[in-house]
Amino acid sequence: MVKTIEWTADGVVMIDQTRLPREKVFVTCRTYHEVAGAIKTMIIRGAPAIGVAAAMGVALGAMQASDERFDAEFEEICATLGATRPTAVNLFWAIFRMKQLREKLRDQPLAEVRQRLVEEAKYIGEEDIAICRRIGDHGAPLIPDGRTVLTHCNAGALATAGYGTALGVIRSAVAAGKKIDVFADETRPFLQGARLTAWELMEDQIPTRLITDNMAGYFLAQGRIGSVVVGADRIAANGDVANKIGTYSVAVLAKENGVPFYVAAPISTLDLTLASGREIPIEQRSAEEVTHVFGKPVAPEGVAVENPAFDVTPNRYVTAIITERGVAYPPYEESLKKLADG
Amino acid sequence: MVKTIEWTADGVVMIDQTRLPREKVFVTCRTYHEVAGAIKTMIIRGAPAIGVAAAMGVALGAMQASDERFDAEFEEICATLGATRPTAVNLFWAIFRMKQLREKLRDQPLAEVRQRLVEEAKYIGEEDIAICRRIGDHGAPLIPDGRTVLTHCNAGALATAGYGTALGVIRSAVAAGKKIDVFADETRPFLQGARLTAWELMEDQIPTRLITDNMAGYFLAQGRIGSVVVGADRIAANGDVANKIGTYSVAVLAKENGVPFYVAAPISTLDLTLASGREIPIEQRSAEEVTHVFGKPVAPEGVAVENPAFDVTPNRYVTAIITERGVAYPPYEESLKKLADG
Repeated sequence: MVKTIEWTADGVVMIDQTRLPREKVFVTCRTYHEVAGAIKTMIIRGAPAIGVAAAMGVALGAMQASDERFDAEFEEICATLGATRPTAVNLFWAIFRMKQLREKLRDQPLAEVRQRLVEEAKYIGEEDIAICRRIGDHGAPLIPDGRTVLTHCNAGALATAGYGTALGVIRSAVAAGKKIDVFADETRPFLQGARLTAWELMEDQIPTRLITDNMAGYFLAQGRIGSVVVGADRIAANGDVANKIGTYSVAVLAKENGVPFYVAAPISTLDLTLASGREIPIEQRSAEEVTHVFGKPVAPEGVAVENPAFDVTPNRYVTAIITERGVAYPPYEESLKKLADG
Repeated sequence: MVKTIEWTADGVVMIDQTRLPREKVFVTCRTYHEVAGAIKTMIIRGAPAIGVAAAMGVALGAMQASDERFDAEFEEICATLGATRPTAVNLFWAIFRMKQLREKLRDQPLAEVRQRLVEEAKYIGEEDIAICRRIGDHGAPLIPDGRTVLTHCNAGALATAGYGTALGVIRSAVAAGKKIDVFADETRPFLQGARLTAWELMEDQIPTRLITDNMAGYFLAQGRIGSVVVGADRIAANGDVANKIGTYSVAVLAKENGVPFYVAAPISTLDLTLASGREIPIEQRSAEEVTHVFGKPVAPEGVAVENPAFDVTPNRYVTAIITERGVAYPPYEESLKKLADG
C-alpha cells in the first residue's frame, strides 16, 4: 500500500488522490500554501488525513517563517490552513494541537520550537495509524462473519495516515479470520469509492464489488448486506454524524432493512462543542465536479447544480460509533462524553 | 423538442440517446435487427418509448418478410424484439398488440396485413403522446404549488413518443400555472437524469437543478422537496413498481421525510399477471457502464461490478399511481384492477 502522506527533507509528499487509481503520481508540497492547495483540491482528502496534512503544513510554514515575525506568520499559517475545508473537524483539531504546542514552548528558542513542531506533525501521522489499528480491533467483533459489508466513500488508508477507519475495521475483521466481502458505493461526484476504496481493497485482496450509490438500497432490501461501516468528518455531542454526501441515505436504508449501521472514527472527529449535527457546516463544492467526470461533460452546458459535499446522519440511524477508545452506543450524549473524557 | 422516434420512408428514425445532450445524432434503423440493436444498446430507452420502437420494429420486419415464410418470419421478428430487454413490460405489450392484429387479419392478403401493421405501429406512437398528456392532466393537481419536484432517471419526452410520463406531470403542472422547479437525480450509471432530464427541462425553460443520486436524501431531509414523481417500467397487481435503479431508495427516503411519492405511467405498464414486484425480472447490464463514463475509466482495471438496471419499490412507499385513466390509490389490488378494466 502506498503512503498517503509523508514528511520528507524535500517537503510534504502526498499521493495525488485526484488521479488514482489509474495514475500513481506523488506531489511534493514545498510551502504551507501548497499544502493548503492540496487539501482544497482534494489531492489529499479524508478527515484524519487532512488533519495530518494540516499539522505538517503548520510545521512546514513554521520552518520557513521568519524569526522577526514568527508569531504573526504562525497565526497566518494556521488561519490559511484552517480555511481550506469547513466540515471535517480533524483539520481544526490538528491545527489547535500545533497551536497549543507553540504556546507551551513560548519561552523556548525558535529553532527548538520549529523542531518540536515538525516532530509533533510527524507524530500526529504515526499516531493516526496506531489509532486506526485500535479502531479496527474494537470494530472487528461487530462485523457479521460470512456476510457482505457495505461502505460509502473512502474511509481507508488513503483517508488516514494509513490502515483506515471504516476500512480499518474491515481489514481487522479479515485479519481476525472473518470471511467477508465488501460492496463499495462509487460515491459521486468525486468517486472516492470507485477510485480509492475499490483500489485499496483490491490491493489487499479483499473481495470487493463496485456499485453505483443508488444500488445500495437494492442490495440492502435483498438481504445481501450484513452490516454497513462508514467513516465520519465530524460527530456532534448527540451522535449525529457528518460524513460524505449519501451517507444519510445509506443509513436510512440500512435501518429500514434492519441492517446495523456503524461509524468508525478517531476521537479527534468528535466535536462535543456542538449539541447536534444541525450546527455542522456543510461544504458546498463546485458545479464542475457534478457536470464533468475526468474532464468529460456528462450534462447539458450551463445546467444549474447543487453540490453539498457532506450530509448529516441523525443519531437515531447510527447503531454504534467505533473509536480507538472503544465502542459508543446510544444514548450518545453519555457514551461519547465518557470516551472523550478518556 | 426533438422527436424521440419516427416512422419514415427510410426506416425507423431515433435520436441517439447515448450521445445526448452534447451531440444530436439521428439513427435510421433499416431492419428489425437494427431496431432490436437500438433497444439493447439504449439508443432508445424508457418503457413507453421501447414499446413504440418494438411495434415499429415488428412493422418494419413485416414489410421485409417474405410472402412464402411470412408467419415464421413474423414469429422470429417478435421473438427477437422481445429478447432485447426484460424488465419494461411495454415492450411485450406492444409486441402482443401487433401479434393480435396479425391474428385478426388472418384472412386478409399480406399486402393489407403489412399496411395495417405499419399503421398500427405509427398509431401506437401517436396514442402514446395523447396518453402522456392525459397522465399529465391527472397528475398536475397532485403537485404542490411553489415547491420543488424531485425526479429520478428520465421519464420524459425522450422516454415516450413525446411529452413524457413523470415529466408530463411536471409539464402539465407548469402549464396549469404552478410555480415549481425540478431537482433531477443524475441517475448513474447511464446518467439519464444528467443527460436527458436536465436537457429536456432546460429546453422547456422549466427551472432545473442537477444533483447526484446520493444527494436526494439530503434535500428530502432538509424539507426542500415538495413531491417526488417518477416513471415506471412495470407495475405488479399489488402496486409494486419496477423502475430505474435507485427509485426504491428515493421512495424510502421520501416516506421517511413525509414527502409524497408519485409514479406516473400508462396503463400498458401494468402487469396484472404478476401478484407482486418480486416476480418482475431485473435486467443486469454490463460492468462497463459502471467502470467507464463516456469511455473514461473511473475505477481500477478488473474491478468486480454489480449492475442491476432496475429495482422494485414495494407498494407501501407509493402514494399514488397516475395513469391516463385516472389516479390509483392504495389498496392497489383494487384500484389498479378498476383502472385496467376500464
